[in-house]
Amino acid sequence: MKDIPSDTDLILICVTDSAVKEIAGKVLNTSAPIVHTSGSLPINVLSDVTDNAGVFYPLQTFTKGIRAAQLEFPVCIEYTNNTVRDLLLHLGNLVSNTVVALNSEKRMHLHVGAVMVNNFTNHLITKVYDYLTAQEIDTDLLLPIIEETLQKIHTAPPSKVQTGPAARGNREIIKKHLALLENDKELHNIYSVFSKSILRYYSANEK
Amino acid sequence: MKDIPSDTDLILICVTDSAVKEIAGKVLNTSAPIVHTSGSLPINVLSDVTDNAGVFYPLQTFTKGIRAAQLEFPVCIEYTNNTVRDLLLHLGNLVSNTVVALNSEKRMHLHVGAVMVNNFTNHLITKVYDYLTAQEIDTDLLLPIIEETLQKIHTAPPSKVQTGPAARGNREIIKKHLALLENDKELHNIYSVFSKSILRYYSANEK
Repeated sequence: MKDIPSDTDLILICVTDSAVKEIAGKVLNTSAPIVHTSGSLPINVLSDVTDNAGVFYPLQTFTKGIRAAQLEFPVCIEYTNNTVRDLLLHLGNLVSNTVVALNSEKRMHLHVGAVMVNNFTNHLITKVYDYLTAQEIDTDLLLPIIEETLQKIHTAPPSKVQTGPAARGNREIIKKHLALLENDKELHNIYSVFSKSILRYYSANEK
Repeated sequence: MKDIPSDTDLILICVTDSAVKEIAGKVLNTSAPIVHTSGSLPINVLSDVTDNAGVFYPLQTFTKGIRAAQLEFPVCIEYTNNTVRDLLLHLGNLVSNTVVALNSEKRMHLHVGAVMVNNFTNHLITKVYDYLTAQEIDTDLLLPIIEETLQKIHTAPPSKVQTGPAARGNREIIKKHLALLENDKELHNIYSVFSKSILRYYSANEK
C-alpha cells in the first residue's frame, strides 16, 4: 500500500482484530493518523508503526440487516498526540454526543463489560425462548418483564432492584426450578451459577 | 378464619409460596373462590381445600418503592370451574389486555423463564457494573448497548441477532477476557459458562 494520496486526513482500519497489526504494517509513506476501531486491541499495535496512532471505538452492537434502535451511543477514543486527538474528537462529535477518552486498559475492561451485558443477555434470552418454545409457551409473554428489567436500570442501580427466589434466599423454589431444567444441561448450569452468585451477593450484603 | 362475610366474591391469597396451603386450609365456611398469585405453585394446593380454586399470576417484577415502567403485562389464570374462570377473566381484564389461561405445569415453566430473563439479567448487569466501577469506568456508557440489546428482541428473534466474540468463534478474545476477569471468580465463571454455551449454539447451528 504505497499509493496513499498525500492529502489523506485519516486512515481508519476496520478489520478483525487479528489482522489490524499486519494491515497497519503495510501502510507506508503517509503521515496521516492510523486508527483502529477495536474494543480489545491496545493502541500500541499501531503506535509501533506510526507516531500518529489512534483508536475510535463505537460502543454499540451492530447486526447486518437490522437497523439500530439506539442511534445515540458513546464513542471511546485514544490517541498518541493532540493532532490525532482533535481529529478523533471532531469525527466523534459528528456521530455522537458522548465522546470519551479512555486508555487501552480501560477500553478493554469496558469491552468485556459490553460483551457481558449485550451478548450474554441476548444468549440468555435465546436459551429461555428455546426452552419455552419447546414447552409450547408463547415467548411474547416475557416481553413486558424484559422491558421492565431494562427500564429500571435508568431509575435505580440494578443491585437495589434485584428480585426473585435467589435474592429472597428461597432455596425451595431454586431446587424446584433446577429439577425442571434437568433435561437442558446448559440452562441448568446457567441457572445454578446465577442462583449461587445472587444468593451470595445478597446474603453478604445483608451482613 | 371463620368470619368470612357471606357476600365475599373472591379470596385472594397473596403470601409467600410456602404459606399458601396453610392459609388456605384456615379459610372455612365460604363458597367464594380461593385464588393464589404464585407462578410456581400448582393449583391443587387450593383445589384440595375448595371446589372453587383458581390462580391469578401477574407476570411482572415489582420492587417496593419503584414504580413499574411497564404498566401493561400479562396475567396468567387457572381455574377449577367456569364460575371461577369468568371471575378471573373479569378481574384480569380490568388490569391487563393480555389474560391467558395456563395450566400449572406451563405456568411453572413460564415462571422459570421469567426468573432467568429478569433476575439473572439484572444480576449480570449488577456484576458488570461492580466490575467497571472498581476499574473507575462510568457504567452509564453501557446504557445504550443494554437498550439496543433489548429493543432488538422486538424486531428479530434473539438467536438471529447474536453478536460478539463467542458467536464469531473468536477464542483468542475469549481467552483475553477470561484473563482480565481472573480476580473475580464469579464473573469469570459466568463468562466461561456463557461463552461455551454460545460457541456450542452457533457452531452447532452452522452445521
